Amino acid sequence: MAAEVNGKSNQSISHTKHKHVKLGLFGFGCVGQGLYHVLEETPGIKAEIKKICVKNKSKARPLRADLMTFNKEDVLLDKDIDVVVELIDDANAAFEIVKAALKNGKAVVTANKKMLAEHLEEIYQLQIQYGKPVLYEGSVCGAIPIIRNLEEYYDNDLLTGIEGIFNGSTNYILTKVFDENKSYADALAKAQELGFAESDPSLDVKGFDPKFKLVIAIAHTFGVFVKPEDVINIGIDRISDLDLKFARENKYGIKLVARAFKKDGRVFGFVAPQFIEQTHPLFAVRNEYNAVQVESAFAEKQLFIGKGAGSYPTGSAVLSDVSALTYDYQYEYKKLNQPHDLKFSNSLSVDAFVSFEQGTNISIGDFEQFQNGYAANGKQYMVGRVKLEKLQAWSLLDGVGIILAPNATLVPEKEITKEIDALV
Amino acid sequence: MAAEVNGKSNQSISHTKHKHVKLGLFGFGCVGQGLYHVLEETPGIKAEIKKICVKNKSKARPLRADLMTFNKEDVLLDKDIDVVVELIDDANAAFEIVKAALKNGKAVVTANKKMLAEHLEEIYQLQIQYGKPVLYEGSVCGAIPIIRNLEEYYDNDLLTGIEGIFNGSTNYILTKVFDENKSYADALAKAQELGFAESDPSLDVKGFDPKFKLVIAIAHTFGVFVKPEDVINIGIDRISDLDLKFARENKYGIKLVARAFKKDGRVFGFVAPQFIEQTHPLFAVRNEYNAVQVESAFAEKQLFIGKGAGSYPTGSAVLSDVSALTYDYQYEYKKLNQPHDLKFSNSLSVDAFVSFEQGTNISIGDFEQFQNGYAANGKQYMVGRVKLEKLQAWSLLDGVGIILAPNATLVPEKEITKEIDALV
Repeated sequence: MAAEVNGKSNQSISHTKHKHVKLGLFGFGCVGQGLYHVLEETPGIKAEIKKICVKNKSKARPLRADLMTFNKEDVLLDKDIDVVVELIDDANAAFEIVKAALKNGKAVVTANKKMLAEHLEEIYQLQIQYGKPVLYEGSVCGAIPIIRNLEEYYDNDLLTGIEGIFNGSTNYILTKVFDENKSYADALAKAQELGFAESDPSLDVKGFDPKFKLVIAIAHTFGVFVKPEDVINIGIDRISDLDLKFARENKYGIKLVARAFKKDGRVFGFVAPQFIEQTHPLFAVRNEYNAVQVESAFAEKQLFIGKGAGSYPTGSAVLSDVSALTYDYQYEYKKLNQPHDLKFSNSLSVDAFVSFEQGTNISIGDFEQFQNGYAANGKQYMVGRVKLEKLQAWSLLDGVGIILAPNATLVPEKEITKEIDALV
Repeated sequence: MAAEVNGKSNQSISHTKHKHVKLGLFGFGCVGQGLYHVLEETPGIKAEIKKICVKNKSKARPLRADLMTFNKEDVLLDKDIDVVVELIDDANAAFEIVKAALKNGKAVVTANKKMLAEHLEEIYQLQIQYGKPVLYEGSVCGAIPIIRNLEEYYDNDLLTGIEGIFNGSTNYILTKVFDENKSYADALAKAQELGFAESDPSLDVKGFDPKFKLVIAIAHTFGVFVKPEDVINIGIDRISDLDLKFARENKYGIKLVARAFKKDGRVFGFVAPQFIEQTHPLFAVRNEYNAVQVESAFAEKQLFIGKGAGSYPTGSAVLSDVSALTYDYQYEYKKLNQPHDLKFSNSLSVDAFVSFEQGTNISIGDFEQFQNGYAANGKQYMVGRVKLEKLQAWSLLDGVGIILAPNATLVPEKEITKEIDALV
């Protein structure tokens, strides 16, 4: 049918000239190989891999030898290469590659969330300085096109919040805990066995990985740069059998939720586990799937669900960035350039379930509003409203588990300066 | 924090010049008023309403008198107006407005799915002929940015299917049926009372409205234009108490599902009610919410959930189109312009539950594969694989209810020409 249409008119709509781009890759691990295969099987994309720079000389790779190099200058100084695709693990080395690529007049595609979260403001400045774009759709929730939608589609709507499941490994573990009635430790071991969790899972289970993604999302949602160390992350690694028993009895799930929202001139954001009711939209997001909910004044709540990791989903996100570079796309950081005076803040109280061993230095007086508590077999449970920074401190104590209440109320504290102003 | 960044550098990233656009509106109903308010409350968007053309002279409207006109030429011939926003109900009159606007050198934004579905190929040609874009994100699933994502984000991935809940009214009715243990008729009456269903609900409950949206989605997913009359739609208006009892006993939901997929050089697509298991991602999509699942070779399954209708969600989608026109965005119809030889086809068998009154001319021999059946109180139930066109014919008979099986297998029939080729 399309053939008929094309037959009738020799013209087609095409307002942008698509150029052919030549890629230089750094790294050929899971995502790099995914990109390579996605690119091979995709007709019509005007991009080809010219060089792949890898580190380990002894590893066998299913690739033409002339594509490979061990010298990064073979990519960075090759005038023929338009786009550097950075897909290595090491965040510091990745940042050096990004800087060198921009300096050498190349556009960059990366999926390195740690590097981006740590250097986003510098990367924004470097893009201005060198006039070349850095795209990173694959860094936040894999195949879910969240950055592009925040930039392009929600550019004018008044965004009030963003939240979701930003980490596939922990969601896989938390799904298995309930589906197969496992303990946290057994579910983690199973996830590691199946490759859904790293052998060192701490970046995931302690909530650092979703925090890096949240930092990137906050810049594109609210136009605010925040350092990852200023954002609180509470992990799922302290979830106890008592917590799981409580969840099962109440037919709750537990999800590791990353969230940020805007209130009274401030942006709040953190990562923490939360009890989730069955009617909550995140309840149905299972296994390695990720989800992002965008809340705005007019479009209301929009939920995006998709695979958050893996060779093909992330490779496909990286390819989508490469494709966007064929028509000179770049992020405009629209929210950043809209006039605003937003500041990131942790002055927030939240409703949480806190479990701890008898003798831990936690008492009713620590709660802004104490709701209830009970003790059994040397363990204690307290429920109530607590300052976020206190929760963070507790989360570092031995044997303390923290899970937000289902539909937890999040209460920004009043700014002291404002109160003083009012008194004067 | 952003202020600091902006303070440090007086530059910002902006590769596209945003122009100021002047809008001429046709219609000032629910969506028009939504757009008006969204525009009023959105700082930074470079668009203003210059004129609103309405039909009914006697209706009181909360608007400045100098904005209103009853003469369409006041909009169409005003050289100052860059963009015509068409938001009237009448599909034929809407198409005339779109044609006249393009002829007069104006870009067009519309949310009229019936008009678009009936004239999409002509509208594609008119855009080429007059060199002006027509955008219509609001026409498919309200605030869900599905057209933009199909065009821009999934431009290179190999899309294999799209399906979802494309109609909010019927989803609201089907949610209430289960939540409040109502009959179909009672739930419809309740939805009408609350404004979630039209006083003449047939476009919705017979599946025409989601079919129009599916036709538009098919063009942007597979690059195939199909006429709405060639796409089969089976509604929810024949769902009986027996069907509901069966669903409740099996803990199924029922959803009106629009779907299209690509197989062996053909595109299949139809709208029909379906039993949905609790673990299915569409199960959790409730009330007036819509959902679109995009399936691709690499990004795998992506689900978008959001409000599918209503003044603000649709107004926000229309505004997003207006905003895109400030940087001269237009659909490139990329899938249409990629070489392919896809044809739309209805040669498909599906697994369905068919309920009918004794005496109806339906028998076991009508099924490609008969699975089981039972009879009670003058009603009969048969389950098995049936040709889609037969299901459509049955759906027009009195007292026949059709609901697809949960996870129904969809079996494309072999093309006869191919079989003959093979025999020769």
